[in-house]
Amino acid sequence: MKELTGACIIGQSGGPTSVINASVLGAMEAALDSKNITRVLGAEHGIKGVLGDRLFDIGLEDRDELKLLRFTPSSALGSCRYKIADPDADDTDYKRILEIFKKYDVRYFFYNGGNDSMDTCNKISKYMQKAGYDCRIMGIPKTIDNDLYGTDHCPGYGSAAKYVATSCMEVYLDARVYDIGMITILEIMGRNAGWLAASAALASHKGLGPDLIYLPEVTFDMETFLADVKRIYDKNGKCIVAVSEGIKDKDGKYISEYGSSLAKHKDAFGHAQMGGLAATLANIVKENTGAKVRGIEFSLLQRCAAHCASKADYDESYMAGAAAVESAINGITDKMVGFECDRSDGYKCDVKLLPLDIVANTEKKVPREWINEAGNGIKQEFIDYALPLIAGETEMPKSDGLPRFANLKKILAK
Amino acid sequence: MKELTGACIIGQSGGPTSVINASVLGAMEAALDSKNITRVLGAEHGIKGVLGDRLFDIGLEDRDELKLLRFTPSSALGSCRYKIADPDADDTDYKRILEIFKKYDVRYFFYNGGNDSMDTCNKISKYMQKAGYDCRIMGIPKTIDNDLYGTDHCPGYGSAAKYVATSCMEVYLDARVYDIGMITILEIMGRNAGWLAASAALASHKGLGPDLIYLPEVTFDMETFLADVKRIYDKNGKCIVAVSEGIKDKDGKYISEYGSSLAKHKDAFGHAQMGGLAATLANIVKENTGAKVRGIEFSLLQRCAAHCASKADYDESYMAGAAAVESAINGITDKMVGFECDRSDGYKCDVKLLPLDIVANTEKKVPREWINEAGNGIKQEFIDYALPLIAGETEMPKSDGLPRFANLKKILAK
Repeated sequence: MKELTGACIIGQSGGPTSVINASVLGAMEAALDSKNITRVLGAEHGIKGVLGDRLFDIGLEDRDELKLLRFTPSSALGSCRYKIADPDADDTDYKRILEIFKKYDVRYFFYNGGNDSMDTCNKISKYMQKAGYDCRIMGIPKTIDNDLYGTDHCPGYGSAAKYVATSCMEVYLDARVYDIGMITILEIMGRNAGWLAASAALASHKGLGPDLIYLPEVTFDMETFLADVKRIYDKNGKCIVAVSEGIKDKDGKYISEYGSSLAKHKDAFGHAQMGGLAATLANIVKENTGAKVRGIEFSLLQRCAAHCASKADYDESYMAGAAAVESAINGITDKMVGFECDRSDGYKCDVKLLPLDIVANTEKKVPREWINEAGNGIKQEFIDYALPLIAGETEMPKSDGLPRFANLKKILAK
Repeated sequence: MKELTGACIIGQSGGPTSVINASVLGAMEAALDSKNITRVLGAEHGIKGVLGDRLFDIGLEDRDELKLLRFTPSSALGSCRYKIADPDADDTDYKRILEIFKKYDVRYFFYNGGNDSMDTCNKISKYMQKAGYDCRIMGIPKTIDNDLYGTDHCPGYGSAAKYVATSCMEVYLDARVYDIGMITILEIMGRNAGWLAASAALASHKGLGPDLIYLPEVTFDMETFLADVKRIYDKNGKCIVAVSEGIKDKDGKYISEYGSSLAKHKDAFGHAQMGGLAATLANIVKENTGAKVRGIEFSLLQRCAAHCASKADYDESYMAGAAAVESAINGITDKMVGFECDRSDGYKCDVKLLPLDIVANTEKKVPREWINEAGNGIKQEFIDYALPLIAGETEMPKSDGLPRFANLKKILAK
C-alpha cells in the first residue's frame, strides 16, 4: 500500500439525521489523529463548500466542543442538495473541485450522505482518476430512509425508528384516554421505501402501537383501507393507523395528492380540505365512518429528534465515519462504508466496504415477505431486524434541562 | 381533628399530560400506606366511572407495576370531559355519586384535573356537605396549559415545556442545514393562555430557538406579523416563528379560523388550503414573501411525550398527589393542592392549599410584562420562572430501547 499524505475534506449532503454528526465526528477524530492527514477541512454545505472554497479548518476547533457533535442533530457543517453534472456533459464543477483539491493538497475526500451523495463521490473519484490526481474518496452513509443498498442498515435509521416507535407508544396511550370513539392517522416519512413507517410496528410489538401499517412497498387501495379501518374501529372503538408518506394507488398516484383533487369537492363536503397525507386520509376516513379522526404528521422531528436517539445508532454512525478514514489511510478508495450484522446470537455489527457505483444506483425496499399478506401489517422478521438498531439511550449532555449541542467556531481555511 | 376512616376514590379528568399518572401514583401510594384509608379505588374515566360504578380496586395491583405510573403518560385510569350539572338545576348525578360513595363507604375523593375538574370537586363537596355525608374532597392539579389560578405552576407544564423547548432547538438546527431561505412556523398548544408557546423562548434563550413568539395574551395583527417575519427573513435568510394555537385578531377571531375563509379564495391563490394554524399561517406567509415556508404542528406529542419529561415536573406531580391524600387524612377538605416556589436562591417548591371555588373560576395568563413591548417575544422574567420547571431528566425504565409503561390489571371493585 502506497502511503498518501495530505489534507482531507469532510462534507455532508442530503437530508439530515439525528446522528449524522456522530459520523462526521468519527471521521474528524480519526483524521485529526492520523499522521497521514496533515489538515482536516470541513466543507460548508457539502460539495457547494468545495466549489465555493468555503472550508472550515477543523484543527482550530476545541476538541471537547467537537466531541459534542456526537449528540448534535442536523448536519453541523451544513448540507446541500446539489446535483453534480455528468462530467462528459459538463466538467466545470470537476475542474473547480480539482483546483480546490490542489490548492489545499487534498488527498482524502469523505462524503456523508445518501444515494445521491454516493453518486457524487463516485463521479468525483472517476474524474480524479482520469485526471491522474491521487486522491482517496470514501462515502459515509446516512439516511433515516434506510434505503441504501448492500448495507444491513443505514446510520440515522435506528434513531428515527426509535423516535417513531416511542412516539407511537405515547400517542397510543393518549388516544385511549377518553371513552369515546377515535381514529388516529399517523404520517411517517419515507417517499419510496417504508422502513421508517415499518418502525411503528415496534410499538405494536409492545402492545402499544398502530393496528394497521401501510408502506409504499404495497399498492394502496382506498376501499380496502377503509374496510380495514372500519372493521377495527367497529370492534374496538379505537383505531390507530400508520402510513408511509409514499403510499401510492394502483395507478402510481401518491395518496397524498388525493387532497388537491378532493379540494375540488370542497363545497359538496362542506368543509375546507387540508394538505398532507395524514390530513387527507383523516378527511376521507371521517367522511366514510363519521368517527372522530385525528391526523398527526410526525414531521421533521423524525429526522432531528436527537433527544430520543439510539445509542446503537450513534455508536455505529461514529464507527462508520472513523472506518471511512482508517480505510482510506490504508489505501482503500471508491467505497462506501456499510454494515454487516449478525443477529444469530445477540447482535453484532461490523463494517464492510461497498463499491460506490452499485450503492449510488440501487434502492433497498422493505422485503415483501416482511409485510403481512393483506399488506396492512409488519411481520416478526422486521421486529427481529430492527430491535437491535434502536437499543440503548442517548447520553446527550444537558444544560438547564436542555440539550447542550456543539457550537463550532467554523473558521474558514486559507 | 376528627379521624375519618373509609375508602377513597381517585379519578382523572380533562386532557392528559406526561406526568398526570405521577400525581395519581403519589395519591395511590399515600392512600395504600395510610391506616385511615381502608380501600383505594380508581375511577374509570373520571367521574363517569363513579356514576357508572366502574371502580378499579388498586389494592389488587402489583406495587412494582404501579410504580411505573410515574413514567407513564396519559391518564392511566382513563379520563373524561363530563360536565356535571348545577345541583340546584339537576341533582341526579349527585344522588348517584352519594349512592356510590355509600356503597363503598367512600370518605375521601381525589380528583386530578384542570379548571373544570376543580369545579366538579367543588360542586360534589358542597353537595356532600348539604347531604350531611362526611367526605373529604381534594383537587390535584394538572394541565400543560399552566393556567390554574393561585399556584406558581401546574403539574404537567414543565414536561410539556421541556418537550417544546427541546424540539424547537432540534428544529432550529434542522432549519439551518441548507443554504436556502426558509421560514418555519411552529404551532404550540394553548387556547387561552400562552404559557406553553412561551416555553419556545427557552430554546431562544440557548441561542437555538424561534425569532418570534406570539401568545394569545396579545392581540395578533397580521400586517405587523408579516412585517416582523419579512424583516428577519430578509436579514438572515431564515426565520422561525412560534405561535400559540389560541392567537386572535382584534375582533376576537381565532387566526386558525382564517384558513376556512381563505379557502374561499382557493382558485385565486391556485392551490388547496390547509387546515390548522401552522398551515394557515404558512400559506399566508408564502403568499406574502414568496419564501419556502414550512408549518409544523407539535400536535399531541406535547402532552404525551413522557420520554422527554422533566424530573422536576414528575417529582412535583408525585408530591402534589401525595400531599392531597396526606392533607385530607389530616382533616383538610375542599382544597386544591398548589405550589409555592422560591427562586431567590436556587429553586425551592413547596405545597400550598387553595380554595376549590377560586381555582375553578379563574384562569391565569402570562403576565403582559413578561412579553416584550412589540408582543412578539418573551422576556427574561419568564426564562427565570420556567427554567427550574424543566430541570432534570426522566429516569423512564426501558425495555428493548422502548419505554416500559405501567400495565395495570384494572380489576373492578365489587
